[in-house]
Amino acid sequence: MVPNLTTALTGPLLDLERRFLDASPQIERWLRAQWNEHTPPFYSSTDLRNAGFKLAPVDTNLFPGGFNNLNPAFHPLCVQAAMSAIEKFCPEACGLLLIPENHTRNLFYLQNVAQLAGILRQTGLNVRIGSLLPEIVAPTPVELPDGSLLTLEPLRRNGNRLGLDGFNPCTILLNNDLSAGVPEILRGLDEQFVLPPLHAGWATRRKSNHFAAYEQVAGEFAQTLGIDPWRINPYFSVCRSINFHERQGEECLAANVDAVLGMVREKYREYGIDETPFVIVKADAGTYGMGVMTVKDASEVIGLNRRQRNKMSVVKEGLEVSEVIIQEGVHTVERVGDGVAEPVVYMIDRYVVGGFYRVNAARGVDENLNAPGMHFEPLAFETSCLCPDARQNPDAAPNRFYAYGVVARLAALAAAIEIERTEPAVAEA
Amino acid sequence: MVPNLTTALTGPLLDLERRFLDASPQIERWLRAQWNEHTPPFYSSTDLRNAGFKLAPVDTNLFPGGFNNLNPAFHPLCVQAAMSAIEKFCPEACGLLLIPENHTRNLFYLQNVAQLAGILRQTGLNVRIGSLLPEIVAPTPVELPDGSLLTLEPLRRNGNRLGLDGFNPCTILLNNDLSAGVPEILRGLDEQFVLPPLHAGWATRRKSNHFAAYEQVAGEFAQTLGIDPWRINPYFSVCRSINFHERQGEECLAANVDAVLGMVREKYREYGIDETPFVIVKADAGTYGMGVMTVKDASEVIGLNRRQRNKMSVVKEGLEVSEVIIQEGVHTVERVGDGVAEPVVYMIDRYVVGGFYRVNAARGVDENLNAPGMHFEPLAFETSCLCPDARQNPDAAPNRFYAYGVVARLAALAAAIEIERTEPAVAEA
Repeated sequence: MVPNLTTALTGPLLDLERRFLDASPQIERWLRAQWNEHTPPFYSSTDLRNAGFKLAPVDTNLFPGGFNNLNPAFHPLCVQAAMSAIEKFCPEACGLLLIPENHTRNLFYLQNVAQLAGILRQTGLNVRIGSLLPEIVAPTPVELPDGSLLTLEPLRRNGNRLGLDGFNPCTILLNNDLSAGVPEILRGLDEQFVLPPLHAGWATRRKSNHFAAYEQVAGEFAQTLGIDPWRINPYFSVCRSINFHERQGEECLAANVDAVLGMVREKYREYGIDETPFVIVKADAGTYGMGVMTVKDASEVIGLNRRQRNKMSVVKEGLEVSEVIIQEGVHTVERVGDGVAEPVVYMIDRYVVGGFYRVNAARGVDENLNAPGMHFEPLAFETSCLCPDARQNPDAAPNRFYAYGVVARLAALAAAIEIERTEPAVAEA
Repeated sequence: MVPNLTTALTGPLLDLERRFLDASPQIERWLRAQWNEHTPPFYSSTDLRNAGFKLAPVDTNLFPGGFNNLNPAFHPLCVQAAMSAIEKFCPEACGLLLIPENHTRNLFYLQNVAQLAGILRQTGLNVRIGSLLPEIVAPTPVELPDGSLLTLEPLRRNGNRLGLDGFNPCTILLNNDLSAGVPEILRGLDEQFVLPPLHAGWATRRKSNHFAAYEQVAGEFAQTLGIDPWRINPYFSVCRSINFHERQGEECLAANVDAVLGMVREKYREYGIDETPFVIVKADAGTYGMGVMTVKDASEVIGLNRRQRNKMSVVKEGLEVSEVIIQEGVHTVERVGDGVAEPVVYMIDRYVVGGFYRVNAARGVDENLNAPGMHFEPLAFETSCLCPDARQNPDAAPNRFYAYGVVARLAALAAAIEIERTEPAVAEA
């Protein structure tokens, strides 16, 4: 069940893990109090990077698309967490409309949809799948690799409500990150729960809002624990009004790369870390690992060649990139087999429900792994993140996963705060 | 992982299971609404009997003592459910005092305590174990079979609070069923949460109150589903003022045995069931499978011999039996290996967190299995009860377990209502 992970993770992180374990009553109590004040996202997944001396989230997805990658042993955990989430959002819920990404041939993704629908059905919901694709004009079964059928149905708008033929759901769950903008058909659904809310989609969401909220969460958490927040928080900065095609904003980019690298260098010196600092430059909105660049010196972002500029200028759905985040790069010291690996932790409501490793043998320890050549190791977690066992040596797998579960929950808390703060009514006020 | 279960369970139960599966959205919604009105017990376990034509609870334990029998795969589920329970009872909870039964040499039971403490610690609570035993005057480590140590500590009463030396918990969790009565040291703890409440202990609890509440729950549930409530509800009756030693109350007993048998016979005729009806006569208060008798004819309870009268007259802690419940017997058609088996379903809060089979090769299909010769099959559940899979054939294990999970939750709901109704302030009003 356990993949071949390099466990030669020495240095401060063992201290950090030990501190998490020793403080677990305090940590759990702190988190409980936070969840009393902030409603967790319905679901989320967080990409973590474990540098040995640092353990930090580098991306938080509010429309997780890899439920099919979870170890089947986590299935009951997903159902239980989903029951708890549904109770809160809509105790009377009986019909749930799931709106997936606009893929009809990406069977890998559709298996995720099937898995998610299965989890939700098992909480007792009637779940049907409505597609935003204009070519879906009638119920369309798609055969999945396991032989089962997933039926995509055309959406039907009826006044202020959205449904399907013969299906009037009380809840709409988006597994579509709205990179292409908010479709008209989803607007003004004020009689139904839309989860996550529309403003959590990439049409409006910004990574920098998330990491600003995370910075605050990490700061408060670190203070409670008496650790340096940098141990769990990547520095970041933002440049707006970038136009890669027209070489606009290069100076802003170079200055911010330099500033972030400078702060990281200072920390490496403080802790005697003998690694080369780097930053990740990526689109502030958008996903799918597009428009991502590893930079070790500010000079690298000046005079990008055409290929580099093309690569950076668009993300999913052809969205033009005009705002970028410059995020402290976190090396990963984890390997699965021959590949560099990073854990992806899945959450439903405030519960860790599983995870897997993203592995990429074609990439280095300081690169984005969400790129061609990646694969997933669904069996990577031996036990759930929820199960620290203080009696075991911290080298034992469950303990390292406990630390992952804590940091992932901090990221989910940051997402909760981010969603509160960016709510349109609030933002307009 | 799956033991050799006889799956030749034909007849109406397949219909019943199918109906449960088809109606699972309705069932889950109904249960959600119920849990909005009634607070589930902190934990519970329910003994079920599956007769093929009937699936019913025959006992609900509010101080479950077999957490060590659960499949380790259920562990994360227990932690997640416990997190949810603790949040509700005491979001600020940090210290929990666990009070076990007064055993120091029953290592099997103490493994349960260790397991339970482990689950609770993993929710982030400081958990320590306080013993009611007068001989525990200092922290006393007990070595468990796995080599770990369980430390029992002497209780310290300080005004209206109970704790240990250097430990002032906000919550007290009883894993002691108070068969010997409510000890003085537990009374008047009005500043701390005591879970389950003292009146749920066998000093005051009555099986007949539980099954009266269950009858109501089963009735409402059956109406929602359009089934005969008898399919899930065992008939019962009560005799008070019994004295087995002095042959007092034999007539009451015989009359009630006859009445219950008559009702069961009527149902067997209605459904064309070719089995011999029987009732179980057992103490209305108390546990541990003591004071239990299988009766097929009223004449059997008249003129009991000395051995029978001795057996029936006392239960755990030497409690004298003066009230008995006459409960419709439910055959079990399940076998594990060579033994007659019945499932025991474990719940924390409103979540099914696991289960096992109680197996007894020395007993018949119409007898109490909680008797010498019994053993447990911790691996008996292939998957969690929470995971029905409507696409599978109902013969597949998960589906049968879904039905078990539903009935177990009905029993937990009945326990919630029972605890509300028997609350002293309410009872006195």
